[in-house]
Amino acid sequence: MTLTEGALKLLEDAVGRDKVFTDEAVLYAYSWDSGPLSLLTLHYDKPMFMPDVVVKAETVEDVINTLNVANVEKIPVTPRGAGTSLSGNSLSVKGGILLDLTSMNAVKSINPDDRVAVVEPGVVHRALEERLHEHAMFFPPEPGSADMCTIGGMLANNASGVRACKYGTTRDWVLGLKVVLPTGALVSLGSRALKDASGYNLTQLFVGSEGTLGVIVEAALKILPCPEQRTLIIAGFRGLEEAVKAAQLILRRTTPSSLELLTEKYVETMNKVMKHFKYPPCKAVIMVELDGSQVEVEHGSSFVAKEFKSVGAEALEVYWNENDRAELWHARHHAGFTILRMFTSSEVKIKAAHIHDVCLPLSRILEYLRYAEEEASKLGISLLPYGHLGDGNLHVNWYVDTSSEASIRAAIALTKKMIEKVIELGGTISAEHGVGALRSHYVSLQHGPLLEYMKRIKAVFDPNNIMNPGKLWPEDEEDFLEQLLKKVS
Amino acid sequence: MTLTEGALKLLEDAVGRDKVFTDEAVLYAYSWDSGPLSLLTLHYDKPMFMPDVVVKAETVEDVINTLNVANVEKIPVTPRGAGTSLSGNSLSVKGGILLDLTSMNAVKSINPDDRVAVVEPGVVHRALEERLHEHAMFFPPEPGSADMCTIGGMLANNASGVRACKYGTTRDWVLGLKVVLPTGALVSLGSRALKDASGYNLTQLFVGSEGTLGVIVEAALKILPCPEQRTLIIAGFRGLEEAVKAAQLILRRTTPSSLELLTEKYVETMNKVMKHFKYPPCKAVIMVELDGSQVEVEHGSSFVAKEFKSVGAEALEVYWNENDRAELWHARHHAGFTILRMFTSSEVKIKAAHIHDVCLPLSRILEYLRYAEEEASKLGISLLPYGHLGDGNLHVNWYVDTSSEASIRAAIALTKKMIEKVIELGGTISAEHGVGALRSHYVSLQHGPLLEYMKRIKAVFDPNNIMNPGKLWPEDEEDFLEQLLKKVS
Repeated sequence: MTLTEGALKLLEDAVGRDKVFTDEAVLYAYSWDSGPLSLLTLHYDKPMFMPDVVVKAETVEDVINTLNVANVEKIPVTPRGAGTSLSGNSLSVKGGILLDLTSMNAVKSINPDDRVAVVEPGVVHRALEERLHEHAMFFPPEPGSADMCTIGGMLANNASGVRACKYGTTRDWVLGLKVVLPTGALVSLGSRALKDASGYNLTQLFVGSEGTLGVIVEAALKILPCPEQRTLIIAGFRGLEEAVKAAQLILRRTTPSSLELLTEKYVETMNKVMKHFKYPPCKAVIMVELDGSQVEVEHGSSFVAKEFKSVGAEALEVYWNENDRAELWHARHHAGFTILRMFTSSEVKIKAAHIHDVCLPLSRILEYLRYAEEEASKLGISLLPYGHLGDGNLHVNWYVDTSSEASIRAAIALTKKMIEKVIELGGTISAEHGVGALRSHYVSLQHGPLLEYMKRIKAVFDPNNIMNPGKLWPEDEEDFLEQLLKKVS
Repeated sequence: MTLTEGALKLLEDAVGRDKVFTDEAVLYAYSWDSGPLSLLTLHYDKPMFMPDVVVKAETVEDVINTLNVANVEKIPVTPRGAGTSLSGNSLSVKGGILLDLTSMNAVKSINPDDRVAVVEPGVVHRALEERLHEHAMFFPPEPGSADMCTIGGMLANNASGVRACKYGTTRDWVLGLKVVLPTGALVSLGSRALKDASGYNLTQLFVGSEGTLGVIVEAALKILPCPEQRTLIIAGFRGLEEAVKAAQLILRRTTPSSLELLTEKYVETMNKVMKHFKYPPCKAVIMVELDGSQVEVEHGSSFVAKEFKSVGAEALEVYWNENDRAELWHARHHAGFTILRMFTSSEVKIKAAHIHDVCLPLSRILEYLRYAEEEASKLGISLLPYGHLGDGNLHVNWYVDTSSEASIRAAIALTKKMIEKVIELGGTISAEHGVGALRSHYVSLQHGPLLEYMKRIKAVFDPNNIMNPGKLWPEDEEDFLEQLLKKVS
């Protein structure tokens, strides 16, 4: 769409001119997220997903005023936190208003006795963590982007990351939300109580709705006392079969706070840049983090080491020192960027990772990876799987050469096969990155007739379809790979 | 409503005559649940909540066929498990079809490697537990009615009970559901994966919807390996202040699997019937259960004992033996029935407990109880509070003499005050029993403008309003206490 002069004037009058931006440089800066959807199009003359206007909200009133204008004028609104999304969740695919919430970043209260922290949506995960640590508390979900991502983005996408194995996803740590509905009403969902069985759980409907139902302006989060101790056990295995077997042995008895899988290429690339440590140079590496009391963690680490050895771990180290663990986790958290490192060392000019985010029952993981490898090799694609093995969430990624018709065609074919297979095996097409625009064309394969009900629920809250259109399900005929294909062929 | 001959014939043809019951004796037997709404009216000539017909579904097809007829003929359908509900959730308040799901009680699969069990809705919690124990696994939510209640009922009401302190509510242990929608379509919500960020979470919308959106016919539940050890620590305190302080000290550092509060009257009554043990005869008794590895539980129980002593515990026992713990938990699980025991020993003829199910931030519990005691004493009411202190969920109950206008008027007045107060303090009017019919008139006080959105969401799935009408929000002008008042005055 293109914003009319009149609509822009209304917006400026409602929110204040100092919070409304239309300079092309600003709009350009807001045209990207951290995923392939925008990065694959970096070489275009103009960004593919440019908003018409950016509103930097500073208060709840700013959000209300923005939505009031947008709803009357039927202008698309895309809420945005840090832009660390990987599925185009916060890209303005339909233009309109980009609503930047990063200035609403207050930690409003921390109450350790009630295990509740109340925050604004723009609080960065790491900033919240630092504040919580002052009270010896923590917020369990920890995405790879924890240094940068906002809590609002985590809520909107139901993010999770490396600690979901024990602690679940962001969804599990939300007690209540304040939300501005598309019609401009400010409403309170949920409560401050730790349990609730009072009516439909609208809080859980809004978590993971990717900004399509309204704008979260406050969240009451459940927090926990920090564990007394954490330890990290890293082991290398001769193959994926042994690594998955090791994971099964651990999980059959206990629940680590993390159980991560890295495959060979990641290990090689990460080892090139790590300062003090190396991951074992094996086909498959597992990282297990345990947390709890000192005795519990000691007991658990002996158990894990014993089980790892029983399936022939080729290397095994236990890291008790916090700084050591921090370096090892830092490398793991940046495994996504590791792909970019591989990319820059390559000869192909225009290239980016195509990111998958499947989740499967643990017993089907090997079958899935074998199938994917087989189909990929038929198409000349090398897969780069890694991820949160403990909860069955794997990122099965590969490069797409966006200047090559053949590479794009292969990506289209393989994506379809991998998505159909994950559904057949009882899994989901997105575990933690969300559907966004990236997966919007595949969501009907997973949800079938339920997609129609989702659309009707959206219409209940957003009758004019202003909230983040083009996300969760498609508004256009072709998915982004097909759009890329057109540009190339 | 009254069912027409024609509609009954359609139902019998669709489901089979052997599964359709209209004998008055059968209808009578299905006219009660375990809560005050039906029990307070036991002395009426005819039950207040009698269905017109009972369908005992044996298969998913039976459910589909029932709903198809009901939807065309616009007949209310009330799904029912074991009828252990306490808020009238499974009472036919609008007549029509009572859909008994207890015959659909298969445990379809248990997969410890995937941490998933797939069950039909009529499986009794205890039966599932026994099957899971064969695999050294367990399903964490454990309501007081665990010996009798069905998993379908737990899902519909988002039940929880004594282990929510560490493990959360039923909601947290559901991966996917198969649901028959009111229009007769069988749909699959969620998946078998442990994480999901793919579209609106309809699974979480259906959990806790109390049978108002459709009928759950299958659930994929998340299960856990059994802990190596459990222990129970019981301590008596001289007052509620000390007990709450003790709870705060524990929760500030660790998360027990249970942290329960009993007050004086319960302790007295329970001690009269217990065989081998007595609870400490104190004003307030706390039961803490710890679970985990042997070393972890030993470490934790020393910590809990130390903290309890620091706030002047008057008595303290640690129970390591499983049978001992079972007897003590059995008494606790039947605390609800303990009220009936008190009742039979009293002189008033027609009397039953009015059950409240509030949940509050822990730091507001004392303020709430003080307020409630004060208001109650003005009205000549003695409160009987107990509950799941560790998660802030208290049952603040009292007797209503249903033959006395004054007693009913006092109950109306106190209920309103207690509900307004819990909302003011950031709590919820129901933590685990659900809204049902009992609390339907109060739900707008908590949810305000959101109630309208809940109704619209219901209409998305149930355009003819056949599913469990009269629950979650009222369809009649007067709440049940006001209806009782009319009968008396």
